[in-house]
Amino acid sequence: MNADLLEQYTRIRKQTEYICTPLGNEDYVVQPIVDVSPPKWHLGHTTWFFETFILKPYDKEYREFDSQYNFVFNSYYETVGARVIRTDRGNLSRPSVAEVYQYRKYVDQHMVKFLDSHITDQSLRDTIVLGLNHEQQHQELLYTDIKYILGHNPLFPIYNPDDDFPKSAGTSSSATLRIPAGIYEIGYAGDGFCFDNECGRHKVYLDDYAIYTSLVTNAEYLAFINDGGYSDFRHWHAEGWDWVKTKKVIAPLYWHNIDGAWMHYTLQGLKQIDLHSAVCHVSFYEASAFAAWSGKRLPTEAEWEVASSALSWGQRWEWTGSAYLPYPRFKRAAGAIGEYNGKFMVNQMVLRGASVATPAGHSRATYRNFFHAPHQWQFTGIRLAG
Amino acid sequence: MNADLLEQYTRIRKQTEYICTPLGNEDYVVQPIVDVSPPKWHLGHTTWFFETFILKPYDKEYREFDSQYNFVFNSYYETVGARVIRTDRGNLSRPSVAEVYQYRKYVDQHMVKFLDSHITDQSLRDTIVLGLNHEQQHQELLYTDIKYILGHNPLFPIYNPDDDFPKSAGTSSSATLRIPAGIYEIGYAGDGFCFDNECGRHKVYLDDYAIYTSLVTNAEYLAFINDGGYSDFRHWHAEGWDWVKTKKVIAPLYWHNIDGAWMHYTLQGLKQIDLHSAVCHVSFYEASAFAAWSGKRLPTEAEWEVASSALSWGQRWEWTGSAYLPYPRFKRAAGAIGEYNGKFMVNQMVLRGASVATPAGHSRATYRNFFHAPHQWQFTGIRLAG
Amino acid sequence: MNADLLEQYTRIRKQTEYICTPLGNEDYVVQPIVDVSPPKWHLGHTTWFFETFILKPYDKEYREFDSQYNFVFNSYYETVGARVIRTDRGNLSRPSVAEVYQYRKYVDQHMVKFLDSHITDQSLRDTIVLGLNHEQQHQELLYTDIKYILGHNPLFPIYNPDDDFPKSAGTSSSATLRIPAGIYEIGYAGDGFCFDNECGRHKVYLDDYAIYTSLVTNAEYLAFINDGGYSDFRHWHAEGWDWVKTKKVIAPLYWHNIDGAWMHYTLQGLKQIDLHSAVCHVSFYEASAFAAWSGKRLPTEAEWEVASSALSWGQRWEWTGSAYLPYPRFKRAAGAIGEYNGKFMVNQMVLRGASVATPAGHSRATYRNFFHAPHQWQFTGIRLAG
Amino acid sequence: MNADLLEQYTRIRKQTEYICTPLGNEDYVVQPIVDVSPPKWHLGHTTWFFETFILKPYDKEYREFDSQYNFVFNSYYETVGARVIRTDRGNLSRPSVAEVYQYRKYVDQHMVKFLDSHITDQSLRDTIVLGLNHEQQHQELLYTDIKYILGHNPLFPIYNPDDDFPKSAGTSSSATLRIPAGIYEIGYAGDGFCFDNECGRHKVYLDDYAIYTSLVTNAEYLAFINDGGYSDFRHWHAEGWDWVKTKKVIAPLYWHNIDGAWMHYTLQGLKQIDLHSAVCHVSFYEASAFAAWSGKRLPTEAEWEVASSALSWGQRWEWTGSAYLPYPRFKRAAGAIGEYNGKFMVNQMVLRGASVATPAGHSRATYRNFFHAPHQWQFTGIRLAG
Repeated sequence: MNADLLEQYTRIRKQTEYICTPLGNEDYVVQPIVDVSPPKWHLGHTTWFFETFILKPYDKEYREFDSQYNFVFNSYYETVGARVIRTDRGNLSRPSVAEVYQYRKYVDQHMVKFLDSHITDQSLRDTIVLGLNHEQQHQELLYTDIKYILGHNPLFPIYNPDDDFPKSAGTSSSATLRIPAGIYEIGYAGDGFCFDNECGRHKVYLDDYAIYTSLVTNAEYLAFINDGGYSDFRHWHAEGWDWVKTKKVIAPLYWHNIDGAWMHYTLQGLKQIDLHSAVCHVSFYEASAFAAWSGKRLPTEAEWEVASSALSWGQRWEWTGSAYLPYPRFKRAAGAIGEYNGKFMVNQMVLRGASVATPAGHSRATYRNFFHAPHQWQFTGIRLAG
Repeated sequence: MNADLLEQYTRIRKQTEYICTPLGNEDYVVQPIVDVSPPKWHLGHTTWFFETFILKPYDKEYREFDSQYNFVFNSYYETVGARVIRTDRGNLSRPSVAEVYQYRKYVDQHMVKFLDSHITDQSLRDTIVLGLNHEQQHQELLYTDIKYILGHNPLFPIYNPDDDFPKSAGTSSSATLRIPAGIYEIGYAGDGFCFDNECGRHKVYLDDYAIYTSLVTNAEYLAFINDGGYSDFRHWHAEGWDWVKTKKVIAPLYWHNIDGAWMHYTLQGLKQIDLHSAVCHVSFYEASAFAAWSGKRLPTEAEWEVASSALSWGQRWEWTGSAYLPYPRFKRAAGAIGEYNGKFMVNQMVLRGASVATPAGHSRATYRNFFHAPHQWQFTGIRLAG
Repeated sequence: MNADLLEQYTRIRKQTEYICTPLGNEDYVVQPIVDVSPPKWHLGHTTWFFETFILKPYDKEYREFDSQYNFVFNSYYETVGARVIRTDRGNLSRPSVAEVYQYRKYVDQHMVKFLDSHITDQSLRDTIVLGLNHEQQHQELLYTDIKYILGHNPLFPIYNPDDDFPKSAGTSSSATLRIPAGIYEIGYAGDGFCFDNECGRHKVYLDDYAIYTSLVTNAEYLAFINDGGYSDFRHWHAEGWDWVKTKKVIAPLYWHNIDGAWMHYTLQGLKQIDLHSAVCHVSFYEASAFAAWSGKRLPTEAEWEVASSALSWGQRWEWTGSAYLPYPRFKRAAGAIGEYNGKFMVNQMVLRGASVATPAGHSRATYRNFFHAPHQWQFTGIRLAG
Repeated sequence: MNADLLEQYTRIRKQTEYICTPLGNEDYVVQPIVDVSPPKWHLGHTTWFFETFILKPYDKEYREFDSQYNFVFNSYYETVGARVIRTDRGNLSRPSVAEVYQYRKYVDQHMVKFLDSHITDQSLRDTIVLGLNHEQQHQELLYTDIKYILGHNPLFPIYNPDDDFPKSAGTSSSATLRIPAGIYEIGYAGDGFCFDNECGRHKVYLDDYAIYTSLVTNAEYLAFINDGGYSDFRHWHAEGWDWVKTKKVIAPLYWHNIDGAWMHYTLQGLKQIDLHSAVCHVSFYEASAFAAWSGKRLPTEAEWEVASSALSWGQRWEWTGSAYLPYPRFKRAAGAIGEYNGKFMVNQMVLRGASVATPAGHSRATYRNFFHAPHQWQFTGIRLAG
């Protein structure tokens, strides 16, 4: 069974570095908005996880790579002592990219040796698996953050000219699925890995409802834009309307109206909008306004999960109408691991599904993703219910 | 039936002015924080409601009191035309308090005349009743806003020396109520008035749960403070912890530690904390952190409503663990009335019950109040579940 | 000589209250921007000066009116002790207007008695005279702050319908005065009162220069506006250009373009612009940009003072090209009085002359007024040199 | 004479790149505060100057390196057209460091060829010389910005372990120079290069004054700190005091009190404070407060310039008591070159001298440097007068 874990570890860690292959050293450093982290930080932070929660407590022979890295790569650190300077991630030119890769190599060598021998304890195995799932979450963030970094550069650089990731997300013709009222169960129930926020499979009562099998397309979203959707307050939440007016939002993120034609920045550069693809990079406010305009609504996360086996999903993280709150009987775990999810359960919305940027094997029908209502930089989309 | 409406109208409108009786003219004007409105504005805005939605559309003989008042008393106004200056409510010294009372008198005279004769149309009746409930909501806001205005003055003025409103909210000894799992119904179902956000009585499935019959007392909350509750991040949501640190929060609003003793500002001036009263003026973050510290949780709004008939409630607006979201099949009404509730259904939490400041007859077990997580200036409290 | 002081005291104190006569109680309270103080505060603060610096230290029988007023009316106060709440002036509804007038009456009665008997000490006399000049400065601020309070109300209320203060500031035809190069003396030299910042008469060398005898008119300023002055960055300081774009400034304060015609708010309400009057309510940025556009410049304060006897001045505070800095050998006095001027000597510009709102007898050719570059709410104008 | 210009061009351009030799690619990219520019930007912007003002207008065969670079390296650009995204300099990972060096190489090759042949026109020569002086200003900024970038990294990286730049700035024992009153001349008068803000040699009258021949040392500044200088408002300008309290300033920039001992970050890493060196990295507020505390004052820029031949200067940019204002008869040049200095002449203070980071040959006794009062990141120091 360790062999399996070793294979996973090696594969997932390599994939993270593969994503960064097309980057120049400079691309690893910047942080154009607070939500985006420098790729260098993702590389270091995921490594810090294994160093901090596996090697330092469990591997007696392990020696810390650099005691200062805790200040740099801990996502939760508070000012510790007089010599530490709090700074934003995007201001840190050191450690260098080369040093971060050395850090990864050093930790990987020790982890591989460690995985070869020690693991009998289930809780230790669980933490390693958590670390790998954590790393996969950062793989998706690498894609979204790299897209933001390059997409907000006036040169509109191409991420990887030899690749066409992510594939254009075509949508099949949409049908309406009708689900009868009744008691259903949601939440994770299997033997595999899940995050703590999915745990506690529980019953919910649902009224009968309809849900669309496909996502809203760019063509449909353009109809909303062309109908004045961004200038009619009636479709919007009050704070969504403030957001539209303050930020002067007129279209999804990365869309540019050039000489009257809508283009969007993709990882292959500026392209024409593909009308048949699922709309992408919309905020909850936009998803919700679109739904209101179309006379429909967003599904709740329970409605989504119950219907999920009959839906086409996996191209866009789909905004639901559910706030991110604890499931019944949810308890935070003790210690730092317990900070993973629970402390974020206020003022965020749940997204379900997965996106073109989600690592293979990382998605589940019970997966609860969550972001703040104005966020657009993930590969987010819209599914209607009604 | 009009006689009944006339009586209600007269009684409720008078009550609003009664609340303001102890104020000096200057107290009507200020707005120390954006959430608090000047009493003058409440008086005018509630009047503007009847002028705008009843008299102007339905009373052909009615002539607008002052066409500029729309800019001053419309809570939703956008800049209209070149001559209008957008300004904060607390910067408006005019119209004067006397003019606002004249405005009330003028509108009341026309309303009384109107109520004497015209009302056969049910939708019109509904709008009048909505206006009265709207006015009652502002009566509670008058109490909370007056308390903030006086309580943030370094002279700590007494609101009304001849009165002892609101009564100290003593709590009976608390018991735990156990509710079995099952399908329950929540939402308004009767013939009387309710807000649109309560409509759509619907089934919910609840796991079995326990809920306390009484509210958390000052004594219990002091134990949390004394145990270092405000300095241990583990009890708090991440954004709650930011709030505590940024705002340097160390106790509920209006509490002052004077020479080692906890006092609090009340409408009768600075007083010692009454240990047996229900804790008041806490934010959702504080309610939630207290619950985490005590090993319990806040009830959901469905749990609260299902248990409500066996609870002692009405002294504090009780933070629930539920986000403010639409009930199934909720639809916004057309027109300005439709803006009443729906557009606020994101990033707020539901409070249930009522408070010592809620007008008599204005509370219901299905009533859904809502505020943002950091808000403390309402008469808010804590009930535990688990 | 005390009789003289008593007469001055009585006259100046009455004049302050006279200015407030047309106000409603509500007008005394608000503070629409941080630079503007509520009239109530001016009334209290000028009174606090005499209580704090004369009565409390020198009048043994004097009993403080209210020990809390120090927190309310001290313009320099820091949080003192645990019970004091720091707040903005515009949030204070108490003390009431009536209480502030009682405070004035109480202090005046004691001051009148005190002036009848005690004053032999020159330093004490100097402080009283300083207090009276301080009060006159606040008289001018009362006019400017009342204008702002009423002028930013959407009802555009008239200050005093029975009066036409301030008189329209007509300008005579302008001539150019030529001053030869040489050593001149500036600074106060007489026996009367002056502020510490005027002291230290000293030599300056001036190149020969030309200065206009009259102020820039509204007609001339309109030519600048109509020539696109507010949209051509070449006329502006870099931070002035930022100010124009951030604040969307297109004209002097109080100007409104209504249906294509320029109107301005005056203390008698909205009026047409008088083309022959001196332009008013311009910032240093605007004064400087106008001068650059016209191929001229603003005079330095030394150039202004040297030429002053031949200039028509007194209608507008005239922005000079001089930064507010200490004269040679300037020393701050010890104690609180020493804070009067010196600590403001950075990042402000000097204005010379006086305005229609300056109390009679309060102006001098050596008077150094000073404000920040973006300020428009004083009665400021432009004189050119070249 | 072209040979001379060619030699200067080659030498100065090389020196810029020499300063960057010790940097890693990542160090070129970040911008921790708005005042600091990424080294990459300095390299590109100085190159853009020659491309924009020399090659594009004067070299007919020249083809622009990349038309997008104008958006990236123009320090004054406004949004041009719909496709350009405004962004902060520190968010631009592209063009890469290698591309910027290619840009430099390309422009240098064309400039060298151009300098070999064309230059007979004096105005063209002047612009080239201006470009070289502009580049030298950015060389000093490279040192100060690199120091900020590395000095605000929690790893406190060493800039160049093989070097000890800048040398410790020892001070000789200080004497007091007395200058008699009289008319003096200041401003540039020679045949060489000077900036437009130094032009217009003109007479000034100075009272007699004393000025110290040496700069304030760390030992003297420590006495100010130890005497509570940062906690006594009497020494400070009002806005300096706000700055101290808001930013929690307790010492010059880069000073760290570690276990009770004062250390400071230098380009060779954290070092003990050298008591005999001139204090460095102080703001105007600090310089001014120190002077007030010591019973002295800062010299004016005229006093400094008149005494300069007898002063030891060149180690620190010395804050003067003079605001940055135009000299008599100053005129902005037409076109973009005219934006060089004049538009910054408000709300900044003049610094005189030069620093250890100033390129050899770039300093003059008439040189007028200028920064905002809170700025500490330049190599600034204090000289007293009195």
